[in-house]
Amino acid sequence: MTRSTPPIHSPARPCRVEDVPRWDIETGVAVIGFGAAGSCAAIEAREAGADVHVFEVAAAPGGSASLSGGEVYVGGSGGTRVQKANGFEDSTEDLYTYLMMAGGPGADAARVRLYAENAVAHFDWLEAQGVPFKGTYLPGKWIEPTTDDTLVWSGSEAAWPFSEKARPAPRGHTAQFKGWGGGKILMERLCARAQAVGAVVHCNSRALSLIVDEAHGIAGVVVRVEGELKYVRARKGVILCAGGFIVNRAMVARFAPAALACTDVVSGGNDDGSGIRMGMSVGGATLHMDQFFATIPFFPPASLVKGIFVNARGERFINEDAYHGRVGHYVLRQPEGKAWLLVDGGIFGRPLIQPDIEVAAVGETWAEVEQELGLPAGSLVHTVAQFNRNAAEGRDPLFHKAADWLRPLAEPPFAALSYCIGDLKAHAFTMGGLHTLPSGEVLDADGEPIAGLYAAGRSACGLPRWGEGYSSGMSLGDSTFFGRQAGLAAARN
Amino acid sequence: MTRSTPPIHSPARPCRVEDVPRWDIETGVAVIGFGAAGSCAAIEAREAGADVHVFEVAAAPGGSASLSGGEVYVGGSGGTRVQKANGFEDSTEDLYTYLMMAGGPGADAARVRLYAENAVAHFDWLEAQGVPFKGTYLPGKWIEPTTDDTLVWSGSEAAWPFSEKARPAPRGHTAQFKGWGGGKILMERLCARAQAVGAVVHCNSRALSLIVDEAHGIAGVVVRVEGELKYVRARKGVILCAGGFIVNRAMVARFAPAALACTDVVSGGNDDGSGIRMGMSVGGATLHMDQFFATIPFFPPASLVKGIFVNARGERFINEDAYHGRVGHYVLRQPEGKAWLLVDGGIFGRPLIQPDIEVAAVGETWAEVEQELGLPAGSLVHTVAQFNRNAAEGRDPLFHKAADWLRPLAEPPFAALSYCIGDLKAHAFTMGGLHTLPSGEVLDADGEPIAGLYAAGRSACGLPRWGEGYSSGMSLGDSTFFGRQAGLAAARN
Repeated sequence: MTRSTPPIHSPARPCRVEDVPRWDIETGVAVIGFGAAGSCAAIEAREAGADVHVFEVAAAPGGSASLSGGEVYVGGSGGTRVQKANGFEDSTEDLYTYLMMAGGPGADAARVRLYAENAVAHFDWLEAQGVPFKGTYLPGKWIEPTTDDTLVWSGSEAAWPFSEKARPAPRGHTAQFKGWGGGKILMERLCARAQAVGAVVHCNSRALSLIVDEAHGIAGVVVRVEGELKYVRARKGVILCAGGFIVNRAMVARFAPAALACTDVVSGGNDDGSGIRMGMSVGGATLHMDQFFATIPFFPPASLVKGIFVNARGERFINEDAYHGRVGHYVLRQPEGKAWLLVDGGIFGRPLIQPDIEVAAVGETWAEVEQELGLPAGSLVHTVAQFNRNAAEGRDPLFHKAADWLRPLAEPPFAALSYCIGDLKAHAFTMGGLHTLPSGEVLDADGEPIAGLYAAGRSACGLPRWGEGYSSGMSLGDSTFFGRQAGLAAARN
Repeated sequence: MTRSTPPIHSPARPCRVEDVPRWDIETGVAVIGFGAAGSCAAIEAREAGADVHVFEVAAAPGGSASLSGGEVYVGGSGGTRVQKANGFEDSTEDLYTYLMMAGGPGADAARVRLYAENAVAHFDWLEAQGVPFKGTYLPGKWIEPTTDDTLVWSGSEAAWPFSEKARPAPRGHTAQFKGWGGGKILMERLCARAQAVGAVVHCNSRALSLIVDEAHGIAGVVVRVEGELKYVRARKGVILCAGGFIVNRAMVARFAPAALACTDVVSGGNDDGSGIRMGMSVGGATLHMDQFFATIPFFPPASLVKGIFVNARGERFINEDAYHGRVGHYVLRQPEGKAWLLVDGGIFGRPLIQPDIEVAAVGETWAEVEQELGLPAGSLVHTVAQFNRNAAEGRDPLFHKAADWLRPLAEPPFAALSYCIGDLKAHAFTMGGLHTLPSGEVLDADGEPIAGLYAAGRSACGLPRWGEGYSSGMSLGDSTFFGRQAGLAAARN
């Protein structure tokens, strides 16, 4: 440092360009974070001819995506090569409709349209970067395939109300890897590719503060690289790809307090919200910060999907064949945080991801289970009798669970697995983030772009923006696709 | 203007102090907005010895509060003079517990504690400013009193689950006025008082942009006063009291999209979010921007509270004796936006605020109504039979509606009033706003105060921050009380 009193940099405060003592690094594009969004932004920016420096806070590349299942949600345009090879047609309009429903009340039509029209091309692009997809289809209901197959049903496509509005197709495409962990392969290939095309990658590098110029544009970023403060000039732009904020519990408490009910985080450990906070520091607007993904320990085994969830009123509240993250949101919001999954002897099992789940009640009759749970007299008995009567006819007029999952719960012993808050190991990640155009340009409170600032992945509010609407693969699909858009837009700036 | 190219000012972009051509007005405290929060901020800042200039965008003082019922939610400390005179005791702990529940998952304990401990003193202060409260109690269930009485039950105090955790008391205190519109009196007095103590008030004055200094503190504000650009230096601070954003439909679509289901706004017309946007422009964090108040046309007449709401499954979903805004949120979120209020011949009536509400079905039996609504066979019949059986015994084991409102729906003809989205005139205002300390200091994304910036009322995220938890009077109580805190804090800065 050449100054006796160096400025104190924090993500929540911008650094004025007048306060920059020197430029240590000069580049076209600076990418903050080397995960799914950052690697794809770097590849595209570099291939469009820009100099690219990437700053990753961890010691190794890959971000949270490298710990994920490596599943990418793609389809439309008639189908990916994998969908087609396995006999599934998938129209762009069906994908568009599904993603609009999945985005909830705040769905972004322009973003969804761009994605739906280009998702197949994006899948091809991922393969061209060297990401392996075996090409095979794994039928059934999974969270992630435990095999090395590619294609799975990964959302609520076949479940009401989605199935009524958009023709269902499986769209989860998983990088080839035996077991859970395809994200490792996905990120190895994408990060290697970014470096191969010439992106300069700095690990152990924490972005501290954006640098703003006199006209309120972004001139660069202050980064602590291997312990040393570096002032980075980015002539074309800074792209924030630093993940969400689920590991920053103070931010979760402030912005997404309902997510505190989830005990565990889905993160590689660096989703501390610094990207979002840097964007906010220069007037970037945030969207849907309250929203989060929450999964609960449910299927597999898929037989449990044939059970029914009830609340403290002894009433059902969801079609149980919906995506586990959708079911999870409904479970978590029940009165007094109480819910149970009712199963009979024919389908009893323990969730693979929480095998020690509490069995809250067991009985030879549903009346015994009702009593043991302390539910209002007759409530659970009525619910099960009504469900059984309809299920025997292959119908669920109240909740529209698909016929495949309908089977009377009539084989004793009967049991109730506890999904009460406190008994539940729920996993969460955040969906709220910076308001961006599909190009990645970060918008201010008036919806105007902030010159030179881009964001993608969970630092932005992307396709995943409504907890109830999530499907596996949507975050990686969004991060990789919109990371690319941001890289392109910044390079062309 | 002395410059040939004046800067373009927008709330979403700060003005650098270097770009200020001159100071047209110099003051201690600049207050943006002369409604409930702004008037109280001005009074306190002035009484603490600061020079105060108030800038109000409308031609006249009063803000949205002047069009309200003028109801203030106060209690605790044994009771206000009005509560006590009418035989109601009210403990600080009960008020605290109720307000914490009302705040939902993001309730702010420090803010609620300060309010609960000082609400009675705040009521006395309002009286000392000249706000008239007749002192009488009006029993029954009202949205606002149509009489000139003071004290009403204005929330969910006596309803489950609130009544189980906090001893209920009526806490809505309405400024004396015959009919709906006590807010006019409230604001006339508060605004007159602010001027009497020496606040300089500029109407027809639109705040355009905050002015930031070199250290990222707030130096003042750019205001268009009667058409002329004025650079206002505020040595101690700027207090944003410019209301919420319900009339800015672009902001609602972005930040609170679910509120678009409400056709009408609760606003004097200037809740355009400019205060919030100015705060965001300098890195102020926002909280719970998705949250909003929504009322539906329900009681009065109070007899309708004895009806039961059902959804498209023919099932109940709420204890109907909860506050109408809480019921409203449950109604609006039912599957497919469909809900109906079931009434019988003994309680039939039309909601005072939407007397032309659609009667969707009429029948001599509930089976006829069920069929006419197209509900699953037997669903509504079961729901009513179960409700009636329990109601006859004064019980509601499923939803815990209080015994006063329980009465079998057994007197034909039977009818279903439509509360389906599309048929419903719902009114909304926004609850999200800037993250502040109880002192009104605006916080950045790291939770650190931004020097010289304060916010109160609906420009801040205050006591009302969860749509389901609102009670009438909570917004005015919050705006006036925390407006005072902000005025004091700024004056002492």
